[in-house]
Amino acid sequence: MIKSSTVAFIGSGNLAWHLAPALDNTEFAVREVYSVNPLHAEALVERLYEAEVKASLDFSTSPCGIFIIAVSDDAIQEVVREIVLPEDAILVHTSGSQSLEVLRFAAAVNFGVLYPLQTFTKDAKVDFHEVPFFVESANPPTEKLLMALAKGVSEYVFKITSPERKALHVAAVFASNFTNHMLMISQEILKENSLSFDWLKPLIVTTISKSLQMGPENAQTGPARRGDLKTLDNHLEFLLEDEPKAELYKVISQDIVDRYHGTDE
Amino acid sequence: MIKSSTVAFIGSGNLAWHLAPALDNTEFAVREVYSVNPLHAEALVERLYEAEVKASLDFSTSPCGIFIIAVSDDAIQEVVREIVLPEDAILVHTSGSQSLEVLRFAAAVNFGVLYPLQTFTKDAKVDFHEVPFFVESANPPTEKLLMALAKGVSEYVFKITSPERKALHVAAVFASNFTNHMLMISQEILKENSLSFDWLKPLIVTTISKSLQMGPENAQTGPARRGDLKTLDNHLEFLLEDEPKAELYKVISQDIVDRYHGTDE
Repeated sequence: MIKSSTVAFIGSGNLAWHLAPALDNTEFAVREVYSVNPLHAEALVERLYEAEVKASLDFSTSPCGIFIIAVSDDAIQEVVREIVLPEDAILVHTSGSQSLEVLRFAAAVNFGVLYPLQTFTKDAKVDFHEVPFFVESANPPTEKLLMALAKGVSEYVFKITSPERKALHVAAVFASNFTNHMLMISQEILKENSLSFDWLKPLIVTTISKSLQMGPENAQTGPARRGDLKTLDNHLEFLLEDEPKAELYKVISQDIVDRYHGTDE
Repeated sequence: MIKSSTVAFIGSGNLAWHLAPALDNTEFAVREVYSVNPLHAEALVERLYEAEVKASLDFSTSPCGIFIIAVSDDAIQEVVREIVLPEDAILVHTSGSQSLEVLRFAAAVNFGVLYPLQTFTKDAKVDFHEVPFFVESANPPTEKLLMALAKGVSEYVFKITSPERKALHVAAVFASNFTNHMLMISQEILKENSLSFDWLKPLIVTTISKSLQMGPENAQTGPARRGDLKTLDNHLEFLLEDEPKAELYKVISQDIVDRYHGTDE
């Protein structure tokens, strides 16, 4: 039997910072926050109605029923080794890349994953209604509760397996982190030449909106798409003194050329 | 003295397809269209008020004063070698990567570059008012005319040098073509795992809007940003059987790790 629908957060990073207050506005109120840094836990508690800072990972007498681990992937295993849970607690992590099974050590019966597919930064507001949540669970009662919890904050909640979640996470790295990195390099090139990044903004907005509307395979343009090797060489020469940028330019262009023009053209 | 402000287009590809009708609505009406494929020229002419298909590059008796070459970079030099212009004509190309000087062979005095920074696809409408135009000219009268022409279609018109235009073009390749390619790979990974690309759309929209608002250097998240080598290895293992994707994952992640964590961490 599952004890209660109150929630404890382990971690106070970017995800906890946004998700805990969002949950606190549903029937799944947050009562406890633990963080390696108690000042961070305190700052998060101030964003919540009735939560308290928890000083250790010994939750044996906790009033909470659901324990959400929202720490970096590397730190999850440490939390799992140290945490002491009350009977019938549900233990949850929020990672895209960690398996469900990693939780079994700490929580023999009830555990699950709650993976929100979004990029979180402390300063940027998050509207969780639009964020897809992916749920994986060790058993049906846990699944029922986690689905209800996720549906409290988002309109888009899906069941998913661990291998599917990994594929989704890798795809998200390309779509979000790598896309942002391309913009970062672009901005650097402009800065180095005293040109304004603002000039590229209409291009970027149009690129993304076309890509989402027509599909990226139909939206591609540019020298690599056209197989215009002369311009590619010309650009590589321009990047000659910045080896990391030249390397990226070469590898990505080659991949585009290979897809649209075959490897033997 | 410059003859007239009527325009001829050489080329009927994606850029000409959108720019010729936009110009046709200003005082710079389009009168002639030449294309290697006369059917393409004919299709573009049908989008214009009073233009005609031109069968050859001999424009010696043309009524036009401004000749805009809107062909692929590789084809520009061929056009420049073959074209015959009337006296005092202005010859213009629209390429991001070709120098101004490439035009001198055909047009001894009046020539310039009109570079619109946007991605053009035939099927997608273009609002030129928001597209930045970059103008470079061989002499002041040409500059004056090209600035007026660009300002007829866009609110954002800037003078620029050839080296600046090249930097801008390389930056645009990263910001547009490479960004789109990251989305393409992301979509492929999802397809291969029977997952929906739609699920990533809120993430993509948020990523870009945060990147433009906060600057890409502040908006970065993800395993490489965190220096989470375990997850990076995990993802590389996932991509093991798709060598081109694994290679891209490795090179781009390494570049992010190097920037945020130094090369010796």
